[in-house]
Amino acid sequence: MKKALLALLALPSIAFAQMDTTADEAAIRSFYDMALEERHAYGWLEELCKEIGPRLAGTEGADKAVEWAQETLDTLGFDRVFLQEVKVPHWERGECSVQLSDTDLEFTSCALGGSVATPEGGLIAKVIEIPDVDDLESFGRDQIEGKIVFFSAPMRQTYISTGAAYGEAVAKRHIGAAKASEYGAVAVVIRSVTTKKDDAPHTGSMSYRDAPNKIPAAALGYQSADDLQALLAENPELELYMKMTCEWHDSTTSYNVIAEFVGSEYPDEYAVVGGHLDSWDLAEGAQDDGAGSVQSMEALYLMMKSGYQPKRTHRVVLFMNEEFGLDGAREYARQAQLLGHKHVIGIESDGGGDVPRGFSIQSLPSGVSVVESFKWFLEPYGLREYSVGWSGADVGQLRNDDAILLGYRADGQRYFDYHHAPTDTFEVINARALELGSASMAAMLYLLDKYEARP
Amino acid sequence: MKKALLALLALPSIAFAQMDTTADEAAIRSFYDMALEERHAYGWLEELCKEIGPRLAGTEGADKAVEWAQETLDTLGFDRVFLQEVKVPHWERGECSVQLSDTDLEFTSCALGGSVATPEGGLIAKVIEIPDVDDLESFGRDQIEGKIVFFSAPMRQTYISTGAAYGEAVAKRHIGAAKASEYGAVAVVIRSVTTKKDDAPHTGSMSYRDAPNKIPAAALGYQSADDLQALLAENPELELYMKMTCEWHDSTTSYNVIAEFVGSEYPDEYAVVGGHLDSWDLAEGAQDDGAGSVQSMEALYLMMKSGYQPKRTHRVVLFMNEEFGLDGAREYARQAQLLGHKHVIGIESDGGGDVPRGFSIQSLPSGVSVVESFKWFLEPYGLREYSVGWSGADVGQLRNDDAILLGYRADGQRYFDYHHAPTDTFEVINARALELGSASMAAMLYLLDKYEARP
Repeated sequence: MKKALLALLALPSIAFAQMDTTADEAAIRSFYDMALEERHAYGWLEELCKEIGPRLAGTEGADKAVEWAQETLDTLGFDRVFLQEVKVPHWERGECSVQLSDTDLEFTSCALGGSVATPEGGLIAKVIEIPDVDDLESFGRDQIEGKIVFFSAPMRQTYISTGAAYGEAVAKRHIGAAKASEYGAVAVVIRSVTTKKDDAPHTGSMSYRDAPNKIPAAALGYQSADDLQALLAENPELELYMKMTCEWHDSTTSYNVIAEFVGSEYPDEYAVVGGHLDSWDLAEGAQDDGAGSVQSMEALYLMMKSGYQPKRTHRVVLFMNEEFGLDGAREYARQAQLLGHKHVIGIESDGGGDVPRGFSIQSLPSGVSVVESFKWFLEPYGLREYSVGWSGADVGQLRNDDAILLGYRADGQRYFDYHHAPTDTFEVINARALELGSASMAAMLYLLDKYEARP
Repeated sequence: MKKALLALLALPSIAFAQMDTTADEAAIRSFYDMALEERHAYGWLEELCKEIGPRLAGTEGADKAVEWAQETLDTLGFDRVFLQEVKVPHWERGECSVQLSDTDLEFTSCALGGSVATPEGGLIAKVIEIPDVDDLESFGRDQIEGKIVFFSAPMRQTYISTGAAYGEAVAKRHIGAAKASEYGAVAVVIRSVTTKKDDAPHTGSMSYRDAPNKIPAAALGYQSADDLQALLAENPELELYMKMTCEWHDSTTSYNVIAEFVGSEYPDEYAVVGGHLDSWDLAEGAQDDGAGSVQSMEALYLMMKSGYQPKRTHRVVLFMNEEFGLDGAREYARQAQLLGHKHVIGIESDGGGDVPRGFSIQSLPSGVSVVESFKWFLEPYGLREYSVGWSGADVGQLRNDDAILLGYRADGQRYFDYHHAPTDTFEVINARALELGSASMAAMLYLLDKYEARP
């Protein structure tokens, strides 16, 4: 019984005694040394943020980013670098103004991604403050009809996981307009979904779902939301003037950027490491997801540069349009299936460039065990947190029973301070934190490949 | 044998079954909730940085900081708040200019803390680049005499612990001038000890030890050091012009600021939580150590506010002049001994305000075990790294066999980017990271007190 139990525990995780730990430690150490000394990811991120900047799918910025990524990857010695066509939406935010009616008082605001415009001359309406989407019903059509709904609830600060707080808070951005329109609202303004109490407005995708009546939706800076709340407390009858000139254009063509290194033993098995190349249009997209893009590029580059010969075919995939429909990831997964490209490993970085905390694991329990057998190697580098269930929005499209998919987890305390806001600039990225992430991803790629990890 | 071994392992750490874990989890959760919601530490830090700013011991800034701390602590409901007199040095940096002789090319520079001035009209000399203090001997008096020694080695980036990298790199700042003067150097310039490759000059204490000949010493910004290195490669005969107007004044009087809450069961046993109130004169001292000061204030405030009644007497101690001689900590320890105040617990925060990683422990092995029995409570908040041997420069002065002394460990990747530089401002502090630190310290204080922890 005891032996059987031990055998059960030992498989399919990689038994410690089977590993060449001395060589592995040295290889992993070399990834960190190179990353911290050479700072390629940090240099690339500066180019992506400062030379290209905002790069919403469908815009010229995204086109330039694709070109930049292809040219940069071309210098790194991959077997091939190529583009994969992706159909993407094309939305333009235009101008956005939210004012206290009949005054000069302007709130800091931005259109939510995908919003329709206001009527050409703008609109004027009374405001009703409602904490969040779930509270609409208790107010009811009587109180809401003809008004601008102001969703005022802040992102809850007491969560330790800011991702959990975001998950709870983001409904007002994503479906607030669709839901409020059911009660006859004429527009929606929301308090920005952010952990930082500054006045930067945070955009992000919204959806009308099947709403028969599409109403404009904007985000206010956190401080502007405070101001509006205070003004409403004084005068519940106040009116807002809103003008937004958003435009939807025809869908257009963009690209996933892919760099490939053919495996020496299992060329038909694919391992991908990736982030998304698009960003919101207000931001340089340093945290979201310039960081993940350049870390992915560097992770595979570090592994190749160390002299290690991957057994499986490895790819960097820079996905297009994660922000506004996941089109790149869906197209990549669709093509992989069409071509019979069996994807067994995926690592995504899309949680910002802060210091490493660990990995989240999306795999069968046996795949989880394999990853957990490698934890020991990464503890000296500060990776001690592993969770199970989810990898990332892009790489997660590749889920299948034969795959181990991972999300690289950077510390998330700062992430939502900048997320989708004009403040998400290169300057908020710390070089060492970013580079530790690249090396951590390289180390995990290396271990998964060397020990032929599978669920 | 087996039973005896288990008993040995179980004592004196606190056995899990002995703890009221449900109540403890709830109490700890309440500390984090209050900290993250109310952000007292963050608000205090803004005042300390923006209303007072630089506060080198002996200067007017330090006087104002003492006043601010006393007034602020007075509002928090302690049993008493008082000042403890401390004799401190008084050094003034004056102006510092390092130029390429006979040109307009000025390098970004600052005097090292404690340096003497140059002669009134400045000095001009050739430069010899020497990587670090240990390399002086291989160059020898022949090459060094009459020259300015330029210690050019950067802080090594490949350490994962930036503290370890700092320990290796800081000799050139601390004793570079004393050592170079033994070989007849007329002055020293060093590459700033920093992890950031910007051009901010980083000051910090230096010492002449017993050097018969005190020579001026300055730090160059990292990029300025690169520039000087490149110029020297082209022209090894180049000369620098240096002018510094530092002044030493008579020692003066300053204060530790102490807030006390008398214990309900063991009033004669003392637990202290502290940081240092002084900062370098170039900086707002947000990371070093405004963060630790306000976290210490908040940690004890959170515990009191939760309604928990400490059994031991608890103190916040804001130490004066950690940076330039540890006078406050030495005086505090001296007084404690004189008065027979038995200090059994100490927690110091002096590693910046970044996200929590864990604690370092300075105690007998039995004291270490006690702390380790509490690790479980703090894992959900991201604290997973515990090391043994050292607490902090200030609290470490209280070491004795009956004490458990801890250093709160924030993530250190960013810390030396700003350390002792004009860039160490309020803006580099993340509110949530800072507050998580306060709550972590409160949680540890609470557990140590509730379970009457001792070695």
